[in-house]
Amino acid sequence: MPDAASTQIVFLLFPGITQLDFTAPAQALSRMPGAKLAAAAASLDPIATDSGFSLVATHDFDTCPLADIVCVPGGHGVVDALGDAATIAFLKRQAASAQWVTSVCTGAFLLGRAGLLAGKRATTHWAYTHLLPLVGAEPAPGRVVEDGRVVTSGGVTSGLDFALTLIARLKGDAVAQAIQLAIEYDPAPPFAGGHPDRAPAAVTEGLKARVYDAAAARMAAALGG
Amino acid sequence: MPDAASTQIVFLLFPGITQLDFTAPAQALSRMPGAKLAAAAASLDPIATDSGFSLVATHDFDTCPLADIVCVPGGHGVVDALGDAATIAFLKRQAASAQWVTSVCTGAFLLGRAGLLAGKRATTHWAYTHLLPLVGAEPAPGRVVEDGRVVTSGGVTSGLDFALTLIARLKGDAVAQAIQLAIEYDPAPPFAGGHPDRAPAAVTEGLKARVYDAAAARMAAALGG
Repeated sequence: MPDAASTQIVFLLFPGITQLDFTAPAQALSRMPGAKLAAAAASLDPIATDSGFSLVATHDFDTCPLADIVCVPGGHGVVDALGDAATIAFLKRQAASAQWVTSVCTGAFLLGRAGLLAGKRATTHWAYTHLLPLVGAEPAPGRVVEDGRVVTSGGVTSGLDFALTLIARLKGDAVAQAIQLAIEYDPAPPFAGGHPDRAPAAVTEGLKARVYDAAAARMAAALGG
Repeated sequence: MPDAASTQIVFLLFPGITQLDFTAPAQALSRMPGAKLAAAAASLDPIATDSGFSLVATHDFDTCPLADIVCVPGGHGVVDALGDAATIAFLKRQAASAQWVTSVCTGAFLLGRAGLLAGKRATTHWAYTHLLPLVGAEPAPGRVVEDGRVVTSGGVTSGLDFALTLIARLKGDAVAQAIQLAIEYDPAPPFAGGHPDRAPAAVTEGLKARVYDAAAARMAAALGG
């Protein structure tokens, strides 16, 4: 892909989106030379995110340009979106011609429902990786997992690592490094425990009991598992 | 601050905002127990961000509740916002009663214009730290800098480290760890160069020549420097 070419990036938006699944990779990808960003939703009405504010799509499903890179964020709203025929049809249509089919967090299950993860190595948010076989995918280690044109990433903040990885692939290391430097992505998380492998067991178990055991059960039910 | 108490968080929105300066800390802070998030702007019309999509404020300046935590994001739009009397008056009014006065990236200069950084140790995006004395602040090392109730953070993605640090301060380490785990903040940036101290010199110099030398000059002019 020559530097001068434009790259059409299409994100899917839906109510109940975990907004950082979209906003973090959008921040990096929108700075890629030639990037054109679209955020597609069923309508152009404001979309309630999980964080107490709303986003506005740039296109509805009918008017959205076809993607070079299609990216599906996650969030608790995925459970409802899995049952929305227009959303799934939109993803199938976009993926038919996209060079890259990608997801952040539980967006992987929307790709899966659209038949795009069958036989693919993939990842998702740590609390849902065991459900990937319900869409025919094989859980694979890593924060960003590539299998051919399909790139999936782990929970929420992994979208930033995903985006920079993809930019390096498309435009070279120097472009990705410049974007990483522009957004001062020199992370210094206050704790080591951003993944269950490193979090205190009590923190992980408490979070599962309060949130993710039930959330994963709802996802499994929506997937017919 | 007891766990049961609500915490009113107020973010400032403005055209040309670097959206991740807002969306990253909003993702973490909105999950803090008792958090109420407001995103205030001059009006409730969609606000164009730097990333090709729009956000919608939850309140205008007149109806926004008073903050316990006020947070000012940055972006190229800061230059115009510095000259907007309503924006600066809003920040002064909010800060008068806030327990925490905070910024991400070049949002620091809006705090400064409102008189809130005089004599304070502070930070901002790496390309602008040398301008902090123009608002009476003393540049300090670190990705998150605390000076009394004033907490400033570095460029863009530092807002996540800022938010988790503040959550740990307000609600304890276990709460912050659970939120960090929920958003799987276990960063694995593809390059080491997220800060000029670690980026290849050619990447830093190229980025300054293309973007930040001119941008910092515009900021300095807007600050009367």
